[in-house]
Amino acid sequence: MLTEIADPGLWPGGADRIAWARRFMPVLGALSEELDLDGWRVGLVLVLEPKTANLALALRDAGAEVIVHCPGRETSDDVAAALAHAGVSVLARSGTTRAEDDDLARRLLDAGLDALVDDGSRVIRLAHAEDRLGPLRGAAEETTSGLRPLRVMAADGTLRVPVLAVNDARCKVLFDNVHGTGQSCVMAALDLSGLELDGLTCVVAGYGHVGQGVARYAAALGAQVVVSEVDPFAALRAHHDGLRVLPLIDACPEADLLFSATGVAGTITAGHLAALKPGAFVAVAGGVEDEVERTPGGRPVRPGVTDHGGWYLLAEGECVNCAAAEGNPIEIMDLSLSLQALAVGHLLGRRLPPGVHLLPDELDERVARLKLDALGVRLDRATDRQRAFLDRGL
Amino acid sequence: MLTEIADPGLWPGGADRIAWARRFMPVLGALSEELDLDGWRVGLVLVLEPKTANLALALRDAGAEVIVHCPGRETSDDVAAALAHAGVSVLARSGTTRAEDDDLARRLLDAGLDALVDDGSRVIRLAHAEDRLGPLRGAAEETTSGLRPLRVMAADGTLRVPVLAVNDARCKVLFDNVHGTGQSCVMAALDLSGLELDGLTCVVAGYGHVGQGVARYAAALGAQVVVSEVDPFAALRAHHDGLRVLPLIDACPEADLLFSATGVAGTITAGHLAALKPGAFVAVAGGVEDEVERTPGGRPVRPGVTDHGGWYLLAEGECVNCAAAEGNPIEIMDLSLSLQALAVGHLLGRRLPPGVHLLPDELDERVARLKLDALGVRLDRATDRQRAFLDRGL
Amino acid sequence: MLTEIADPGLWPGGADRIAWARRFMPVLGALSEELDLDGWRVGLVLVLEPKTANLALALRDAGAEVIVHCPGRETSDDVAAALAHAGVSVLARSGTTRAEDDDLARRLLDAGLDALVDDGSRVIRLAHAEDRLGPLRGAAEETTSGLRPLRVMAADGTLRVPVLAVNDARCKVLFDNVHGTGQSCVMAALDLSGLELDGLTCVVAGYGHVGQGVARYAAALGAQVVVSEVDPFAALRAHHDGLRVLPLIDACPEADLLFSATGVAGTITAGHLAALKPGAFVAVAGGVEDEVERTPGGRPVRPGVTDHGGWYLLAEGECVNCAAAEGNPIEIMDLSLSLQALAVGHLLGRRLPPGVHLLPDELDERVARLKLDALGVRLDRATDRQRAFLDRGL
Amino acid sequence: MLTEIADPGLWPGGADRIAWARRFMPVLGALSEELDLDGWRVGLVLVLEPKTANLALALRDAGAEVIVHCPGRETSDDVAAALAHAGVSVLARSGTTRAEDDDLARRLLDAGLDALVDDGSRVIRLAHAEDRLGPLRGAAEETTSGLRPLRVMAADGTLRVPVLAVNDARCKVLFDNVHGTGQSCVMAALDLSGLELDGLTCVVAGYGHVGQGVARYAAALGAQVVVSEVDPFAALRAHHDGLRVLPLIDACPEADLLFSATGVAGTITAGHLAALKPGAFVAVAGGVEDEVERTPGGRPVRPGVTDHGGWYLLAEGECVNCAAAEGNPIEIMDLSLSLQALAVGHLLGRRLPPGVHLLPDELDERVARLKLDALGVRLDRATDRQRAFLDRGL
Repeated sequence: MLTEIADPGLWPGGADRIAWARRFMPVLGALSEELDLDGWRVGLVLVLEPKTANLALALRDAGAEVIVHCPGRETSDDVAAALAHAGVSVLARSGTTRAEDDDLARRLLDAGLDALVDDGSRVIRLAHAEDRLGPLRGAAEETTSGLRPLRVMAADGTLRVPVLAVNDARCKVLFDNVHGTGQSCVMAALDLSGLELDGLTCVVAGYGHVGQGVARYAAALGAQVVVSEVDPFAALRAHHDGLRVLPLIDACPEADLLFSATGVAGTITAGHLAALKPGAFVAVAGGVEDEVERTPGGRPVRPGVTDHGGWYLLAEGECVNCAAAEGNPIEIMDLSLSLQALAVGHLLGRRLPPGVHLLPDELDERVARLKLDALGVRLDRATDRQRAFLDRGL
Repeated sequence: MLTEIADPGLWPGGADRIAWARRFMPVLGALSEELDLDGWRVGLVLVLEPKTANLALALRDAGAEVIVHCPGRETSDDVAAALAHAGVSVLARSGTTRAEDDDLARRLLDAGLDALVDDGSRVIRLAHAEDRLGPLRGAAEETTSGLRPLRVMAADGTLRVPVLAVNDARCKVLFDNVHGTGQSCVMAALDLSGLELDGLTCVVAGYGHVGQGVARYAAALGAQVVVSEVDPFAALRAHHDGLRVLPLIDACPEADLLFSATGVAGTITAGHLAALKPGAFVAVAGGVEDEVERTPGGRPVRPGVTDHGGWYLLAEGECVNCAAAEGNPIEIMDLSLSLQALAVGHLLGRRLPPGVHLLPDELDERVARLKLDALGVRLDRATDRQRAFLDRGL
Repeated sequence: MLTEIADPGLWPGGADRIAWARRFMPVLGALSEELDLDGWRVGLVLVLEPKTANLALALRDAGAEVIVHCPGRETSDDVAAALAHAGVSVLARSGTTRAEDDDLARRLLDAGLDALVDDGSRVIRLAHAEDRLGPLRGAAEETTSGLRPLRVMAADGTLRVPVLAVNDARCKVLFDNVHGTGQSCVMAALDLSGLELDGLTCVVAGYGHVGQGVARYAAALGAQVVVSEVDPFAALRAHHDGLRVLPLIDACPEADLLFSATGVAGTITAGHLAALKPGAFVAVAGGVEDEVERTPGGRPVRPGVTDHGGWYLLAEGECVNCAAAEGNPIEIMDLSLSLQALAVGHLLGRRLPPGVHLLPDELDERVARLKLDALGVRLDRATDRQRAFLDRGL
Repeated sequence: MLTEIADPGLWPGGADRIAWARRFMPVLGALSEELDLDGWRVGLVLVLEPKTANLALALRDAGAEVIVHCPGRETSDDVAAALAHAGVSVLARSGTTRAEDDDLARRLLDAGLDALVDDGSRVIRLAHAEDRLGPLRGAAEETTSGLRPLRVMAADGTLRVPVLAVNDARCKVLFDNVHGTGQSCVMAALDLSGLELDGLTCVVAGYGHVGQGVARYAAALGAQVVVSEVDPFAALRAHHDGLRVLPLIDACPEADLLFSATGVAGTITAGHLAALKPGAFVAVAGGVEDEVERTPGGRPVRPGVTDHGGWYLLAEGECVNCAAAEGNPIEIMDLSLSLQALAVGHLLGRRLPPGVHLLPDELDERVARLKLDALGVRLDRATDRQRAFLDRGL
């Protein structure tokens, strides 16, 4: 067995946390009974915590041989131990260096995967760079920032496997990004800083789905929100949502809390940091390295808070909800992990050509309907008159 | 000259109202100076009120010969008179029958149009049905419900001209539908009924862009909002927005105010109406005939309100903000009418194949940027690091 | 009979509007059956529109002889005619001068009133100044600004009758001021100006109940709200509600719409007006003369809008919801007019000493309970354990 | 020295946390420089965490001899150690029984206090019951539930010292209760349960200040809120705020999350608990014992969550934000602890008669103004015209 974890003895605590999460994930539970993945080997790369662990178990229950990998800084050792104890292969232990993480990823790839669920496309890109694709029939990727380089590769003709853009599914875009990431990032930032938002000014760089979510929850909690944007439609949207829109350098002197929500490296520069209001907190709600320019010499002042002499960095500039809290809310994760499970089933059930593909609508809709059932929300049905109208267009 | 209007003497009042609207429409003003439509004949079909009148004047100022047509029930006679007084041909007078409206539309078509701005695709379909397309190079259509039958025709191969789907432009979708139509319909319904929403239950059939806007403003004004949907994603979205979701028949007994926001005929049936809470008001926020099943025998009780023995119909089931108020807010209309102006320029500047086309992105963005300029909102610019990141995808 | 009205023939339209309002005023209806005012003469001074007309009818139905008076600029002639046609004495016609209004008020007082419902305390003060109190047992006054001079008189010992401060009842403070006045003033301002608030900046001078209501609805409709305050608690409250707080002179250059909500004369000075953003609209949500410094030379540009060369005054600086719309929403008025009816009954049923008195709690609660009944809202009951806890304090 | 703490060696961690909190408490810092408490002995009873610790230090810096006491279950041992290390007497260690807590309280009283800051009036009542008042000149009490029995005692004539009702100060009522307690309780409940509120139903028993705050934040985070009330005004207010109002027993079957926000024992009975939706969470946002009826046999499932076979109790039914998080937000606590500091100064500076007294307005306003200064928020000044108007009442 491949497993490399920190401490197998931690499994009971991890198992309890995984079981707790499971009861709030009815859609994934229903799907694991439907899927048949017998005989396939599936690699999962994800932030290893109780919710994602349930995806590993669901795929295992559906018959797959599952191997989980997670970089050390995003690994909960008790969850890793619990998965290993449940018979899943796990390559993840906290405290690894980046080089060690890459080695673990190589071991994952060299196991000969049929399908891969990636996070940030780090492992897919590694597999291409080092020619370690092996028997891989395809991969699923759920982050905007992970898909971006894959689309560049697809355009170049260098992408050699099909990739399902789970990120673009409607169940993902509508709920995970706006509600899930927005709410959990705001909550995590408040938790780490001990602040409350009433009366504070929250500056949000980027007004895409994540930025809209952050802005919505920050405003709901009483903050004055200022948005910075480079796209005219997004800027106009923020303005019409009642928010002030300013270039970032002009917004910084008012910021009590600054979020980068662009998913683009180089968003918060040293110049921006120097212009911040004294005592401001800076957090990243996106998902790439170096959204905030690295500044040496920070001094830890409380868990997850580093004092940079005038301003405070939360979660060392990593995505604040992943690094500092348990990631996205359970109910939202139930949707996005269910999409991943269906994506794996879809990839293994057919030969798709290389390229970035959308998840078929019917799978997306399957998740939405299972979720409505679990919630007890009843859909209406179109009347005959409505159907006739829609058929002939008037 | 073609003009047929109710009373030319009404022009001074109409001219004042048009001038008032113009000062809140800086984008259209800027575009009329840029466009060159010299020598073209353009037909405009639209709800004739001060804001749309400015589109006629802007196209005229850009050099076009403009002919305006509007069905009688949506015509402001003073605005019609003012346009005629300003030298625009006008075929619109209040009090016409539907048959007379069709005759006016035929006269419009028979004038030999180069381009047509339609509303609900009534005139485009008439032109096809009666073979009156003449020299028409193309049309612009800005309603969802107007585009639906045109897309059916395009799929059938029976659409013989290019149509620009102005409705799908981002400046239209993001602002007009959610903000404009939502806010103006809620305001118009409150104005007609004399109600305030605090503590009332507002049921919204349909949670597309218009329904979301209606729900947002109704909730903002203190209503409890219940949504009815047939689409699972939309239902899930409403649920995650904190709204109750019920089949319409189950929601009706709680409704103080019921909006149809589907844009689909047959949405509110006699069965729904019979199930309404006594004293409920019913309004249409969409844009097609027969969204509410026609019920004879209503008794007018105040302007725009008909008593149907237990429930009240607003604006006789027509779109409540068009029929009962001045339509969408000025600032929002500035965006959508500017898109129409650019669409006309685009159609006349090239030969597009028959079919439903999207408005080119750069025209859409042109409108967004002019609007930001007019508002004094400053866009940020991507840093070099951000641009490099976006170019190579990571 | 005392009646002096503009045109008796207008009664049918007024009667329809009064009947329409009545169906949304269940509390007042229930009270008129409970009260017994046989043999008393009651004067009503109020903005004469369909809702207030129902108070006159309710008191008449309870047995009182009712005389209604209203200054000309706040009189709906059709409502006046309908009341007269229903046998109520009416001293109110549009178009009167202030001197004529005072004469009508004198005729009202000289009729020998037992009780008076006043508005702004204009007639109570006139009665004191000219020694025309007659048999008056007391008065009810429902505006903050009307009570202020009466409290000064009470402190001076010059107030000679008891006055019930209906304004301070909980059913009035909680609902009429925040919800009713706030919502109706924002709606009236949007209606007159034709603006929509998304993306505009709304400056509110004063953050008392009315100002909070205006700010709440303006923000709900998408405006960026800036508050100006002279009281530290109110300023802090606005700040914690997520609003920017600035001295008025610094807020004026950002204002698209400026509300005075202080109820204090001299709030908006010529200096403030000169500092306004070009094209700004100015409205009064309070209830006293001269909240906005009078500026001559305005030019009417559309109904209720005067152009002062750079900025626009709404409703000529009168309270915008009274002058420009039908006043407060029906449901809210049902509460405050019901309090007035109970106040009249209370004054006539006993001899209170001169001074400003609160309305007894049980009357206030009676109105709240009748309203809950009418709404179908069910109160819970304290458990035995809760009652025991509350009795002994722990 | 009196000190009894768990482990003096924990001081460095506690000192860091106290220092972190201090930088967000500018008002308390400013007051500690103004106050002169030389020669007085002051007892502090409070939840012992970094923010309240700063009150102890501020009073010490002002010259007082300070003795701190806290029941074991609300004590952070590292904070206790840090205070002791800084020279403050501390009687607080985690893990004490209730009997031991009472003994510690007796030792506090027997030290001979000049002033006492109490929490829930537990120690004041003990001092009366056991005749241990000693030289006490008076006490400050900041909770609604703590003041209730003291007011009963004052009415009975058995209260023997003056008590300042810090709870009723405007800086406390407006900010701590609505914003502070509301936000921190909702955050703590989400943190413990791992839920997100979008689409869930949150039932709030009690719609006073705390309940309004809980409802506001729950709704802001996407919950459907249902309120239960026994008071007609509060019920009507909730209804007008757009919330559903139901008797608690009827609301329980819909609850995903149930808050008790009454501050009254016996609010949630066994009957209510039996009626809950399966899987519901129950939390207390008030401040008394037994708001939720004690149910034996709960099984811990994660920190702060006990499974009662069908529903989950948060924080064992203690006030969820005190027990499970760091209590109220720092900025809000800065206001209420500053009021406490001024209350102590006021009690020691004069001899007040026994009874429950309000904090003088000027002290309340002092705190508000210092807070505005710290925030950089500028008050406006009344114009001469406004002052004249206010002086003469019109």
